[in-house]
Amino acid sequence: MKIAVLGSGQVGQSLARGYTRHGHDVVIGTRKSEVEGLPVATPDLAVADADLVVLGVAGRASVELAGSLAHLLDGKVLVDATNPLDFSGGFPPTLSVCNTDSVGEQLQREFPEARVVKTLNTVNAVVMTDPGLLAGGDHHLFVSGNDPDAKSRVKELLSEWFGWRNVIDLGDITTARGTEMYLPLWLRLMSVNGPAFNIKVVVE
Amino acid sequence: MKIAVLGSGQVGQSLARGYTRHGHDVVIGTRKSEVEGLPVATPDLAVADADLVVLGVAGRASVELAGSLAHLLDGKVLVDATNPLDFSGGFPPTLSVCNTDSVGEQLQREFPEARVVKTLNTVNAVVMTDPGLLAGGDHHLFVSGNDPDAKSRVKELLSEWFGWRNVIDLGDITTARGTEMYLPLWLRLMSVNGPAFNIKVVVE
Repeated sequence: MKIAVLGSGQVGQSLARGYTRHGHDVVIGTRKSEVEGLPVATPDLAVADADLVVLGVAGRASVELAGSLAHLLDGKVLVDATNPLDFSGGFPPTLSVCNTDSVGEQLQREFPEARVVKTLNTVNAVVMTDPGLLAGGDHHLFVSGNDPDAKSRVKELLSEWFGWRNVIDLGDITTARGTEMYLPLWLRLMSVNGPAFNIKVVVE
Repeated sequence: MKIAVLGSGQVGQSLARGYTRHGHDVVIGTRKSEVEGLPVATPDLAVADADLVVLGVAGRASVELAGSLAHLLDGKVLVDATNPLDFSGGFPPTLSVCNTDSVGEQLQREFPEARVVKTLNTVNAVVMTDPGLLAGGDHHLFVSGNDPDAKSRVKELLSEWFGWRNVIDLGDITTARGTEMYLPLWLRLMSVNGPAFNIKVVVE
């Protein structure tokens, strides 16, 4: 499978290295000429050639970046791993969109022919690609999206790629508000625990 | 210890019954003349006589209700168990305050002499008073507040009253944004799991 990762920061690099370890043909879509040993292409070339597109850039920028690629995203699964963090007021950041909207919904509205799946935004880059680091993987990830087939495919891939065994389908793309608005709690927990943690949903 | 619970709904009643089971002298502060077998008093009388005040009414109403009792709250620990849920647009509710403020912060600003501790707002009434129902209590509750002594006392009481063993101190009252903004995720998880669940923070 050919995967384009948009975003050359920590999250984008971690995801790209994780996919590569699992034998996928990965390219980082970026305007940079190199990203620490990973194959790069311009965003439009990377997306045009990809079976699956992963957004790993900051929230606001992701909508703008994807905007230039609109026609190339039609029919493709667009994995949105971003959060709309606004650091303009310092740390901890606020959210640039929340409560009545989310980045996931913005992307789905902007690219109605793409199949947006929100996931991976509730853990840091290390946990994302190696959930087994914590309690042998006994904790949860979430998916939100309007297309059941796209969500199923992404759940399979999260398992194949990184070993995610516990993935909860929250519902349609509006449920991305839930995971994006969890970030303020995540940030406070990070101040207590450091960034390598996750939550387990305990039901009985 | 004399406890005043403000709020005669499901949360207020569950908390009052839980405290009563543990031998505390509890009164529900309400304008109603009776609340299913629990002792009631007007809010001002209930608060005047209390060592600890628990707010269990809906978010917006809590600030208004407490407003009429301002002078009575000076120096007292005010446990804020509320969430600013706005159902005016249907289900799931949005938050009437979030991102740059929280009910916990509003209360602390409104009553600078009260010692506000935000807690219990991340679980439903059943889990609140009986955490052992889920995984023998192996999941987490949070406290936020500016007064370390008030938080320590509330943590002790949560343990004594209900058996809460795992309580994470998130920091000052601004961290109430974290737990209040978790509610949109809680609501989606409730749609998947029903209301009797909680999260465990997995750190290793």
